[in-house]
Amino acid sequence: MKKFAVVLSGCGVFDGAEIHEATLSLLSIAKMDCSYEIFAPDLNQHHVVNHLTGEEMDETRNVLVESARIARGKIRDLKQFNPGEFDGLLFPGGFGAAKNLSTWAFEGADSSVLPEVEDAIRGMVALKKPVGALCISPVILARVLGEVKLTIGDDDSTIDAIESLGATHVSTTHGEVVVDKTQRLVTTPCYMLDATIDQIAAGADNLVEAMIKLMA
Amino acid sequence: MKKFAVVLSGCGVFDGAEIHEATLSLLSIAKMDCSYEIFAPDLNQHHVVNHLTGEEMDETRNVLVESARIARGKIRDLKQFNPGEFDGLLFPGGFGAAKNLSTWAFEGADSSVLPEVEDAIRGMVALKKPVGALCISPVILARVLGEVKLTIGDDDSTIDAIESLGATHVSTTHGEVVVDKTQRLVTTPCYMLDATIDQIAAGADNLVEAMIKLMA
Repeated sequence: MKKFAVVLSGCGVFDGAEIHEATLSLLSIAKMDCSYEIFAPDLNQHHVVNHLTGEEMDETRNVLVESARIARGKIRDLKQFNPGEFDGLLFPGGFGAAKNLSTWAFEGADSSVLPEVEDAIRGMVALKKPVGALCISPVILARVLGEVKLTIGDDDSTIDAIESLGATHVSTTHGEVVVDKTQRLVTTPCYMLDATIDQIAAGADNLVEAMIKLMA
Repeated sequence: MKKFAVVLSGCGVFDGAEIHEATLSLLSIAKMDCSYEIFAPDLNQHHVVNHLTGEEMDETRNVLVESARIARGKIRDLKQFNPGEFDGLLFPGGFGAAKNLSTWAFEGADSSVLPEVEDAIRGMVALKKPVGALCISPVILARVLGEVKLTIGDDDSTIDAIESLGATHVSTTHGEVVVDKTQRLVTTPCYMLDATIDQIAAGADNLVEAMIKLMA
């Protein structure tokens, strides 16, 4: 049974992990008779956004604690992630990937990536194990690895930024995946497009299936 | 196209709506080519639980605002719900149903139900439109309607409590639904059993399908 590690970045599209993408990634893994463990970094969120109004709230929330809502409490600090224990690494999207796992939302191509996130990605690539990323998360792969092939959908400014890092962008529509066979990366646009929830499910299914094909 | 109203009770199994049940209910509705709108009551949660430790946190969060995380901002106050506009009403589970939508977690068969929740259920029943409930949410149907047929899985103390209200309980396992044809209620146990996420998806699919069959 192949085992996935899923990395969350909070709980909610505007300041954390996108809930549908996270949940449907877990479902796709289970449907393919694979298992998963969930990880998140133990640090405060960049900020907290009221998802009803879009306004910032005067609160502090922890990424690991909030991610535990999606994980139903079964989650570990990303610093405990060991690439040797897993067959694939998967990043759902949501602004948390660009605000908590990296500073992409504020600094684009000049952004920094959280050390434990970079270590996890580099560790899997070194072992020739696949890494999957949904929605905005592929930007982290571009920032860490540089010359990769990936998709973030069709957003021009994001495409320009990742291409400035040496990445090759492939435009995609709902449910489509892009596979970088050299680095064993799989990406799909999900809510980077104006999508319905069943289109997110199709993207997650296709991404997980493509990752399994890349597993030794 | 049939239209569902989905009522959330926060965002997270221990103090709000169960995220997988909520997300997978939305997916089931979309897969069946139906549409949905999401509602939640505008009031403070009973409490906030740290989902990593299970401990109560010294915080105040609003049910509507936190539910908006699952709804990606597209959500309305449950007081605005009009049964005439919808073909079915669906309650995902999570402790929020028993802590925020009702006081079932603390008072069992003697619990009170939030007026806008009771109004929504009675409004649909009066119009002979189906109401679906996952996980622990069926207890609300028993508390409001009394003599109904439903399932909450196989938990003896909860079964005793709903039977004391006049309800008939049917024990079920993963993915099974119970249909009360008289009151047009559909229930399924989901995480009231020790379930995997693909079993939750099966329960949501079967519940939504059974609800559609009950629609005129």
